[in-house]
Amino acid sequence: MTIEGHIDFFFKPDSIALIGASPNPEKLSYTILESLLKMGFQGKIYPINPGYQEIRGLKCYPTPDEIKDKIDIAIFAVPASTVLEILNGPVKNIKGAIIVSSGFREMGYEGKEMEARLKEIIKEKGIRVIGPNCLGIYDTASKVDTFFISGAKVGRPARAGVSVLTQSGSFAAMIMDEMANEGAGVARVVSYGNKVDVDESDCLEFLAGDKATKAVALYIESVGNGRRFLTAASRCVQKKPVVALKVGKREPGARAASSHTGAVSGRYEAYEAAFRKAGIIEVASYEELKDACKVLNRYRPVEGKRILIITDGGGIGISIADACEEAGLKVPEIPSEAVRKLKEKLPAFASARNPVDLTGSVKDEHFIVALQEAFGDSYDLAIVSLLWGPPLLTPGVAVKLLDFADSCGKPILICSPGGKFSRETASLFTAAGIPVFFTPDSAVRAAAVLCGGKR
Amino acid sequence: MTIEGHIDFFFKPDSIALIGASPNPEKLSYTILESLLKMGFQGKIYPINPGYQEIRGLKCYPTPDEIKDKIDIAIFAVPASTVLEILNGPVKNIKGAIIVSSGFREMGYEGKEMEARLKEIIKEKGIRVIGPNCLGIYDTASKVDTFFISGAKVGRPARAGVSVLTQSGSFAAMIMDEMANEGAGVARVVSYGNKVDVDESDCLEFLAGDKATKAVALYIESVGNGRRFLTAASRCVQKKPVVALKVGKREPGARAASSHTGAVSGRYEAYEAAFRKAGIIEVASYEELKDACKVLNRYRPVEGKRILIITDGGGIGISIADACEEAGLKVPEIPSEAVRKLKEKLPAFASARNPVDLTGSVKDEHFIVALQEAFGDSYDLAIVSLLWGPPLLTPGVAVKLLDFADSCGKPILICSPGGKFSRETASLFTAAGIPVFFTPDSAVRAAAVLCGGKR
Repeated sequence: MTIEGHIDFFFKPDSIALIGASPNPEKLSYTILESLLKMGFQGKIYPINPGYQEIRGLKCYPTPDEIKDKIDIAIFAVPASTVLEILNGPVKNIKGAIIVSSGFREMGYEGKEMEARLKEIIKEKGIRVIGPNCLGIYDTASKVDTFFISGAKVGRPARAGVSVLTQSGSFAAMIMDEMANEGAGVARVVSYGNKVDVDESDCLEFLAGDKATKAVALYIESVGNGRRFLTAASRCVQKKPVVALKVGKREPGARAASSHTGAVSGRYEAYEAAFRKAGIIEVASYEELKDACKVLNRYRPVEGKRILIITDGGGIGISIADACEEAGLKVPEIPSEAVRKLKEKLPAFASARNPVDLTGSVKDEHFIVALQEAFGDSYDLAIVSLLWGPPLLTPGVAVKLLDFADSCGKPILICSPGGKFSRETASLFTAAGIPVFFTPDSAVRAAAVLCGGKR
Repeated sequence: MTIEGHIDFFFKPDSIALIGASPNPEKLSYTILESLLKMGFQGKIYPINPGYQEIRGLKCYPTPDEIKDKIDIAIFAVPASTVLEILNGPVKNIKGAIIVSSGFREMGYEGKEMEARLKEIIKEKGIRVIGPNCLGIYDTASKVDTFFISGAKVGRPARAGVSVLTQSGSFAAMIMDEMANEGAGVARVVSYGNKVDVDESDCLEFLAGDKATKAVALYIESVGNGRRFLTAASRCVQKKPVVALKVGKREPGARAASSHTGAVSGRYEAYEAAFRKAGIIEVASYEELKDACKVLNRYRPVEGKRILIITDGGGIGISIADACEEAGLKVPEIPSEAVRKLKEKLPAFASARNPVDLTGSVKDEHFIVALQEAFGDSYDLAIVSLLWGPPLLTPGVAVKLLDFADSCGKPILICSPGGKFSRETASLFTAAGIPVFFTPDSAVRAAAVLCGGKR
């Protein structure tokens, strides 16, 4: 925050150096190189380690300054004290650093001292820093992946529109893994840990103008400079939706946050007020943030709160309606003219009210008929809940629903509860960029985000 | 409710007749026979259909009374009007019926008339009835499965301790499918639809004394006889935990419930009071009921609300602590004596507070050390959250944790967030009957149930 200038180069690097590179699979740096190579980064990669001539076919350099090239990102995967040593040496060609190493502020008095020294050095040398004590960047646009956790353990989501900013690396890993598992993608993920330099405000400033980013999701333990955050967030909200989860709200969580990244959480109410002022959509839990990310990959927030529910399982329709009311959303009756048409066009067994219950006798086309007749000006958003039990319902319903969703101009959220079959079938939707929610509750959480969250 | 006598025979039948049996895979009855055979029901199965001599190798009878045997369960998979016709004929050997057919009370005036006639007939003939408009019974103890949805579409959970009672068939299917997908089991599931006879009170009376059932989960749209329900539920709660989800709480949900099974939902506040009076643990949503089922398969409720959190991901520990506070649970500090021991035995990087953060440098044994030293008299329940990213953490931690859980006498909930890898690894726990929760939020929902729910 004390260092001037943009941080754009972190998101379009030409060259990456890996300090502490190693051919030993037990080292974090091994996994980082693996991640970078797997991701298909197209720029230059420079392993740095005085002990090797070459690592995985790449020429290895003893020190950064032996590289006759500017280094956009130097990833530091060495112990905290070595980080300081190297930065104290000749590092003129380093523009930005990602310091994944722990052992700084989060580790008591000695660590705090080290971090203070780190801050001085990078200020003096004009190096922008992400971290320390972080995972760094996972970027589907620039093809950068500095995560030291292998893809076999934590899945990497495909490219989509939401960018995620987080202090916590484990949070980044958890949400990426689940998003990948549910067929949802991301744009850029930044885990900045102790935030010795680059913080959420820097990232928000960059993401506001970033074409690859359609929406931003924030995981916040603490914010250092509240005024700067408010300005950066407000500007970003002008351009694209921003959602935030504040953790460490109450005593024990706050206590944990302080030993985690050395953050002082501050009063939750202050955050709440700042979010409201900036126009940030606040979410209450991890699950809500994940649902927000999924839905914002595809849809923009809407003005109203009127939800149309269409389902082939009565009990689920009721659960969705209940959850909507609980979340402050409205489930208004279908206007009588539309009810008349629904009764004409739907079979007798269907219930032409909101929730529309097409029952276990449903056929694919009934879902479309219901949307065509009922999803008029009376509703802002539709939740279509598909149970796959009904014998005449086929996966072909997905193509029909996708066609309708493409042309209708309002959000249609797919809820496909259940296990193996429904999750497989869900890929028909997710492959086309339509998010799928696997419980009534999660579909409603996503709807509430589009309808403005807590407000 | 008007018919006397126990309904035990539904849960230990010697003989099952399938009225409307068919070799045509497009018929619901085909899938029911498939379900029964797959489930491995050991009693006699009698297909009934005047059009066939034999179906799938089983002798087929033209009418029920041609069978020279008592029929414990006659499954009716024929149109509503045919149900009445058959029951009006010679059916002396039928003890109980499961009427899966729809077209009764939920279908307007004519349906209501039909259901009234059905009620008269079964009273006159002394036949106990589950349904109509239901899926019937899925029973891992008696090996009965009358569900007309194939196992390929809706997974069948393995045997475990929780029995599920529900008006809604789609709800039964949804929760079974997800439980199966998450490696969780059930004891008996009863979907009773319109409840012309057998209702939640009958089932609660049976389940109270049922050895296969360790806990009961209720999905309630409406209860007919409130006083009887209160008595039956209170008695059951004396024997085993009962959790309930009331849906159709507010206007739109209530409206949907009425067209769904023809139920009148009644004022939610009355249900809330009844649950409290009976000692039922009320849950607020579908996800909470599912989490309750998973946790009650293995653990009994505890007296206190003091939660110990142990994790290898700081951000997740904070999320869990926040969610605990939100749910009215406590996350008290670890007593200083235990902190001293933890500092001795855990490496320097770990944080010896609650939540205990073992960080990304964790080894398997650290989880056990943390439990041994901290999970003393100061806590009622532990949530152990495993992120699989840390390079030195191995699936071997599961065996160690299972050993500890076996001997410690207090509930240990495993939280294993993430995607493919963590879900696969979760089977190490679920195979041993230990439930696994895949988000911080769901682990805390389960903990809240064990700590008495809303109370």
